Amino acid sequence: MGLIVMKFGGTSVANPERIRHVARRVVRSYDQGNNVVVILSAMAGVTDGLIQLAKQVTDLPDKRELDVLLATGEQTTAALLAMLLKSMKYPSMSLLGYQAEVVTDKTFGNARILEIGATRIRDLIRERHIVVVAGFQGCDPDGNITTLGRGGSDTSAVAIAAALKADVCEIYTDVEGVYTADPNVCKKAKKLKKISYDEMMEMASLGAKVLQIRSVEFAKRYNVPVHVRSSFSEEEGTMVINPDKDMESIVVTGVTSSKNEARITITKVPDKPGIAAKILGPIGEAGIVVDMIIQNPETDGKTDLTFTIPSGNYREAMQIEKRVAGEIGAEDIFGDENIAKVSITGVGMRSHSGVAAKMFSALAKENINIQMITTSEIRVSCVIEEKYAELAVRALHKAFGLDHL
Amino acid sequence: MGLIVMKFGGTSVANPERIRHVARRVVRSYDQGNNVVVILSAMAGVTDGLIQLAKQVTDLPDKRELDVLLATGEQTTAALLAMLLKSMKYPSMSLLGYQAEVVTDKTFGNARILEIGATRIRDLIRERHIVVVAGFQGCDPDGNITTLGRGGSDTSAVAIAAALKADVCEIYTDVEGVYTADPNVCKKAKKLKKISYDEMMEMASLGAKVLQIRSVEFAKRYNVPVHVRSSFSEEEGTMVINPDKDMESIVVTGVTSSKNEARITITKVPDKPGIAAKILGPIGEAGIVVDMIIQNPETDGKTDLTFTIPSGNYREAMQIEKRVAGEIGAEDIFGDENIAKVSITGVGMRSHSGVAAKMFSALAKENINIQMITTSEIRVSCVIEEKYAELAVRALHKAFGLDHL
Repeated sequence: MGLIVMKFGGTSVANPERIRHVARRVVRSYDQGNNVVVILSAMAGVTDGLIQLAKQVTDLPDKRELDVLLATGEQTTAALLAMLLKSMKYPSMSLLGYQAEVVTDKTFGNARILEIGATRIRDLIRERHIVVVAGFQGCDPDGNITTLGRGGSDTSAVAIAAALKADVCEIYTDVEGVYTADPNVCKKAKKLKKISYDEMMEMASLGAKVLQIRSVEFAKRYNVPVHVRSSFSEEEGTMVINPDKDMESIVVTGVTSSKNEARITITKVPDKPGIAAKILGPIGEAGIVVDMIIQNPETDGKTDLTFTIPSGNYREAMQIEKRVAGEIGAEDIFGDENIAKVSITGVGMRSHSGVAAKMFSALAKENINIQMITTSEIRVSCVIEEKYAELAVRALHKAFGLDHL
Repeated sequence: MGLIVMKFGGTSVANPERIRHVARRVVRSYDQGNNVVVILSAMAGVTDGLIQLAKQVTDLPDKRELDVLLATGEQTTAALLAMLLKSMKYPSMSLLGYQAEVVTDKTFGNARILEIGATRIRDLIRERHIVVVAGFQGCDPDGNITTLGRGGSDTSAVAIAAALKADVCEIYTDVEGVYTADPNVCKKAKKLKKISYDEMMEMASLGAKVLQIRSVEFAKRYNVPVHVRSSFSEEEGTMVINPDKDMESIVVTGVTSSKNEARITITKVPDKPGIAAKILGPIGEAGIVVDMIIQNPETDGKTDLTFTIPSGNYREAMQIEKRVAGEIGAEDIFGDENIAKVSITGVGMRSHSGVAAKMFSALAKENINIQMITTSEIRVSCVIEEKYAELAVRALHKAFGLDHL
């Protein structure tokens, strides 16, 4: 018995039948004596549908208003589950972001949680209510609706679990847990029993669609045990926790790839101090997250600068950079949306050498050209041509012994 | 130049193309130097669609949660119009019910407005924003979302116009104004240039779908001039205002009919003091509005009691009354959903006699049996078999000289 936060993703609430399934699952936990807070995403496809609707009205929807629109998706599922639970004679109430006091900054479309009041959640739990919170949304200090970005419901769930000091945050999704690679790409992918916050964070940021990265940051910071599991089976999933010795003996835990990236290159920029800031500053101001950055060695006082961004921001970023390129006297600017990033991750890397070299040679063996490289303590990533993404994942999965884990 | 509240109904915002049309209309008013506040309904059909969705989850959706669900409809259109106006370079912002401080009581599904703060609306107007407010919704003092019942966006509009002391509240709809009868039923119906608040209130409550009755109550109480007009034409519509001499010379201004009624009869009730309260009390407590009530003269210490309610509440009311009938020892209970109410309305009735008699004889001439009768100072209504509704409207329209107004 304890306090459990259960988060269900879009495929788990895709229609009334599945919502009934979620209700049964929630009620089972509740009937075991647990206090239960449920966080829901919008029905699968609804958020994209709303974005399409907005685009029928205007090409570049205002971000504040888009958040007002998108927030209806989770409002819908939260209301539906709460009314279903009530009709099953369980005390229940839905709360929207502002009602749960999920206070964020003002970065519409990609807001960060500043604090969670959760007064009403606590009061309702005390009365043994099953509280259903609309995920993905919050409000800024002025009461404007904000959304937390793609996969934001995971962050809602973990942040609320942290605020409530929940015993576990269960993330129900359409996969069985976290795998060594995407099973759709690599048939030999294995489900991991546990994974460290750091590894999960790297993998989340690299395109493993299981958990949003911010949710893992939150989980790590507040030490919230996260259980990633399937809403369609009873199987135990993957626990995301602090690392233990077992974990450190494995060099590479997972291979991931992401196609949601785009590259922008600005050529022959006069190489003066502060030029990178001039190029990347406006991107940051627009709330666009730059991932990799490469600045080529200078020749004749000129340099080329290449960086990658989420492909969803490509159009806006190109608009910004065309203006900047003119202002700083660059020769040319071009972009590429047909790139992919493949990465290997593992806390064991810290104590092993030659991991990157092994990765490069595995890719070379398949004749895959590496365009950009970045590394962290527990990760190596390479940008390659998009069409090689799946091949690269399989090759690396094999090279690092994950096929036979 | 002044402050104009413009309200657009569901058909006026039914799709992105129509929302663009609304935007052009709004901008024209704004460009003439007016301050403009826009109140929107949900897209036509959306509210019904959401109710259907709820019913796929549970037969009798909890009212608080249904309001959370329904509120998404107006949230959607408000966000879309605001983002469109912004993309047209007009300063604009959407506000939801709670953000506009539309405070209501706790009657979920049919809440009454208690007060409107409108602080943010005023601030935004001062900065020359076009403020787009989601109609139909408010919040109770605890911050729960409420909705105002069918046609509630009209009430939102008039109440906000009253709070802002607007010069006029323009209600844009899919008809040209208020007619002497429904033009779909009676080809000879004529558009009225003006109508008094009282007449409009009677007609609204009687099934003229032009304006929600509470909106007219509000308009009367705060003396808000309401202009009912078409969003698809430039024609002047009908002004709803305080009565003047012209109006009083016309005996009957309009003939209306409503099929959204149902009748419940409880027979052979032991006739003790307080029995009507026992029967009707629980209906009121459930927030169901009883319209007509007839109690037959007592025979053998028993009486029959018949009353009408909105057909949307029929099922719930029958459930309640079956229980009550058992408790009070009634013989039988039955209901009829196939009834209609036809009514004649006019402030001129106050100074003319024989109006009711003329109505009864006009119906008798068509062999239409009258089941129940109610009257007010400026209205006479009869319940008849549903199938005669249209015939009755045409007969009365002719009998009171409206065919040749």
